[in-house]
Amino acid sequence: MLLSEIAKHLGGVLIGIDQDISGASTIEEATPSDITFLANPKYRDKVHETSAGAIISGEKLETDIPQIIAKDPYLCFARMVSLLYPEKPIIEGISEQAYVHPDAEVDENACIFPHVYIAQGATISGGCVIYPGCFIGEGASIGRNTTLHPNVVVYDRCILGRECIVHAGVVIGSDGFGFTWDGEKHFKIPQKGIVIIGDYVEIGSNCTIDRAALTSTRIGSDVKMDNLVQIGHNVTIGDHTIIVAQSGVAGSARIGTGVVLAAQSGVAGHISVGDGCTAAGRAGVTSDLPPGKIVSGFPAIDHRQWLRAQNVYKDLPELVKRIRALERRLDAIDSD
Amino acid sequence: MLLSEIAKHLGGVLIGIDQDISGASTIEEATPSDITFLANPKYRDKVHETSAGAIISGEKLETDIPQIIAKDPYLCFARMVSLLYPEKPIIEGISEQAYVHPDAEVDENACIFPHVYIAQGATISGGCVIYPGCFIGEGASIGRNTTLHPNVVVYDRCILGRECIVHAGVVIGSDGFGFTWDGEKHFKIPQKGIVIIGDYVEIGSNCTIDRAALTSTRIGSDVKMDNLVQIGHNVTIGDHTIIVAQSGVAGSARIGTGVVLAAQSGVAGHISVGDGCTAAGRAGVTSDLPPGKIVSGFPAIDHRQWLRAQNVYKDLPELVKRIRALERRLDAIDSD
Amino acid sequence: MLLSEIAKHLGGVLIGIDQDISGASTIEEATPSDITFLANPKYRDKVHETSAGAIISGEKLETDIPQIIAKDPYLCFARMVSLLYPEKPIIEGISEQAYVHPDAEVDENACIFPHVYIAQGATISGGCVIYPGCFIGEGASIGRNTTLHPNVVVYDRCILGRECIVHAGVVIGSDGFGFTWDGEKHFKIPQKGIVIIGDYVEIGSNCTIDRAALTSTRIGSDVKMDNLVQIGHNVTIGDHTIIVAQSGVAGSARIGTGVVLAAQSGVAGHISVGDGCTAAGRAGVTSDLPPGKIVSGFPAIDHRQWLRAQNVYKDLPELVKRIRALERRLDAIDSD
Repeated sequence: MLLSEIAKHLGGVLIGIDQDISGASTIEEATPSDITFLANPKYRDKVHETSAGAIISGEKLETDIPQIIAKDPYLCFARMVSLLYPEKPIIEGISEQAYVHPDAEVDENACIFPHVYIAQGATISGGCVIYPGCFIGEGASIGRNTTLHPNVVVYDRCILGRECIVHAGVVIGSDGFGFTWDGEKHFKIPQKGIVIIGDYVEIGSNCTIDRAALTSTRIGSDVKMDNLVQIGHNVTIGDHTIIVAQSGVAGSARIGTGVVLAAQSGVAGHISVGDGCTAAGRAGVTSDLPPGKIVSGFPAIDHRQWLRAQNVYKDLPELVKRIRALERRLDAIDSD
Repeated sequence: MLLSEIAKHLGGVLIGIDQDISGASTIEEATPSDITFLANPKYRDKVHETSAGAIISGEKLETDIPQIIAKDPYLCFARMVSLLYPEKPIIEGISEQAYVHPDAEVDENACIFPHVYIAQGATISGGCVIYPGCFIGEGASIGRNTTLHPNVVVYDRCILGRECIVHAGVVIGSDGFGFTWDGEKHFKIPQKGIVIIGDYVEIGSNCTIDRAALTSTRIGSDVKMDNLVQIGHNVTIGDHTIIVAQSGVAGSARIGTGVVLAAQSGVAGHISVGDGCTAAGRAGVTSDLPPGKIVSGFPAIDHRQWLRAQNVYKDLPELVKRIRALERRLDAIDSD
Repeated sequence: MLLSEIAKHLGGVLIGIDQDISGASTIEEATPSDITFLANPKYRDKVHETSAGAIISGEKLETDIPQIIAKDPYLCFARMVSLLYPEKPIIEGISEQAYVHPDAEVDENACIFPHVYIAQGATISGGCVIYPGCFIGEGASIGRNTTLHPNVVVYDRCILGRECIVHAGVVIGSDGFGFTWDGEKHFKIPQKGIVIIGDYVEIGSNCTIDRAALTSTRIGSDVKMDNLVQIGHNVTIGDHTIIVAQSGVAGSARIGTGVVLAAQSGVAGHISVGDGCTAAGRAGVTSDLPPGKIVSGFPAIDHRQWLRAQNVYKDLPELVKRIRALERRLDAIDSD
């Protein structure tokens, strides 16, 4: 693809000689046939070491390498990668080595790989790709163009939207964790609800999302979950929210829209996290957060307050010494 | 089902007009044909907003809605839900799309779905439901009426009790994590033991339970595990213990009966946790706990002590200021 | 096997009567036909309670039980266990219930169980054992003598070395977690790279290892990962590194050789951890570490500094009292 075409496609301006580009790579690993990008001016010096054939940048760089100057070079680069390496269409049809219940509805334009199990009353829409080892429970429904990677399990009656990507090993709709003591042993609270997942959702490998006890666990549209995330029963998660790897949201928590829960964070049960909040890595949110709050630590507190406290924390032994010195000085004064 | 019948079934007292109830729901979402419950008097005001057709309560409520007054309304409600939404019996038999080794013993009343693999010498008891994608290793044994949801893996020789529920993606009996340096690389300590799981155990999605090196990893009866829990090799867990999501128990730890390990908690290797202990959310237990202890934090300390320390923690910068002020005052006195 | 043979095999010295040994067990559970070991002199007293038929020890013990004195008794014992309980060779061939694409290359000495899916262009080397439910994506390659336990998923083009053991439910090569806001929703950064895994690697159950965005996520040789570990995209992990259960390494982090990341620890994105570093249990590494550092806490600091700070932490309320006392004493002086 010619740089001039790329520039046009991205709405950018080409500076330097027009030439053909066939790949995209990082600034460190790009070859002369690759395009790369510079998003963070901090790494500007790397431009002098790269072998890339072209660079997408937000500002003019001092280099002879052809540049495309465009707003948001990272987004532009991502678009280029999509363009240069398009997804291969998958047109396998419905495998005879899959099990499809006669009362399931599978669109003729869906692709069902071998060793898939589709139960009675399930609905698989057009454009879906269901990889080997997936299980779609009774009455479950998968929206248009959604991809389930291998070994995804969708329990009965759960609903996934369209254009979702669910990575391998994800479990959607397993029983919520609810028991009550009956005097002799734990009595299981029946988990009769479902999970409803919006559109354009991506769910990382081996995540677990529990069904509600009576109603629905709801994941909004454009929610993005990293790997090994746990979502408890009756949780609601607003649109565009991002949940990074190994985080957990406990039962009945309500997470707003545009929230970020960074890696290994947690939200306690029944807690409400307002729109646009950020919980930093490892944060453990144990009380309701108003919109826009940034919190850290466990129990999570205001991020700046946490930074200040954390800063003192590591010097606590020093603090003890200062207190002891003060005590001695006062003792000396008192004994005068 | 008539309210009078329900009241009789629960051993409760009906106040108000007898009527037919066909469903159960939360106090917020219940419709006039649903029964709901009030377990926590804190939410008493919600009674005035609910559309429920009846309420199970521990005490008489000021409302015209028919009430069933009964001890432990939450347990009563759970029983009602079980009654109103009974599990559909699964009577699929042994699928021809499953692989069952000729030397495996599968009870004729077990249900084996397509794409299940049952190895030589494995035993599947009557009433078991083994969903698609499950793997039962050589000589493993699954007790009566136990359900394995899709893609559960049971390694060779492991033993599950009866009436267990194992959710999708759980791995039972993978190798414990043991290596010793041989001078050039890590030498694998062979993991030749097994896992033994009691009766009435429920295990959440994608949990992992490792086999012992030489003996057994033991999970007691009526143990309830949430999703993504990790149990190391040689661990023993007492009856009725509850382990909430994303917690981990390291190798050779001994957890007593009736213990609660809350979400994202951890117990270090070889540690002994006494009967009835509670580790709060995120607690990391690194020393033995006597029975009945409640601990928090990492390393976990007495819960109340942790609360007090945590309370000071966030004001540490303030403390530093007070110390500095004291130092200045003393300097002023000294320089007099 | 005679003790004299075992001693010869281990390069040790037999003290006591020569006799036949048929098994190996822990010091607590060994029977007279078992050999056991004493690695930690701390447990020396257990020798007087064991029923073992022989003991491997680093030093002469005061007991009539036959002993084999050898350097590194734990390694010797591990070798004995391997010898006494050899792995049964698996010679099933390629199951007709597996799906093998006509353009996949499967060595005739590989074992492919039922319900395995091997995609176009994939390569399975000799001696591989691919258990039921595994998925090998397009163009992926599995080295000689590597075992994939049930339900392992290897996405397209990923490369595993030889002599690896991958436990059940592991996902290798799912998309890295990368999005950029396009003004209306999250735009997915295409994840076109791969995962490359070295030789002699062991990966615990339900781990997740993401593919790089453009290049490779690299796991060195002899790396050992426990269960439920998360490895982000573009991460590199050096040879011999050990990562204990439920730990996570965020995108683009570089972990050196011989590193230990203890249980439930984490390394932040783009961080560099030097060779031979140790992150203690629960440590959260948020800044680069020079080789050989031992760190604890979150954010992780020098382990000894953390121990001292932690020691003060739990007595913080006491510290506040001391400060208040000082303030009162000074007030009294001032008011004199």
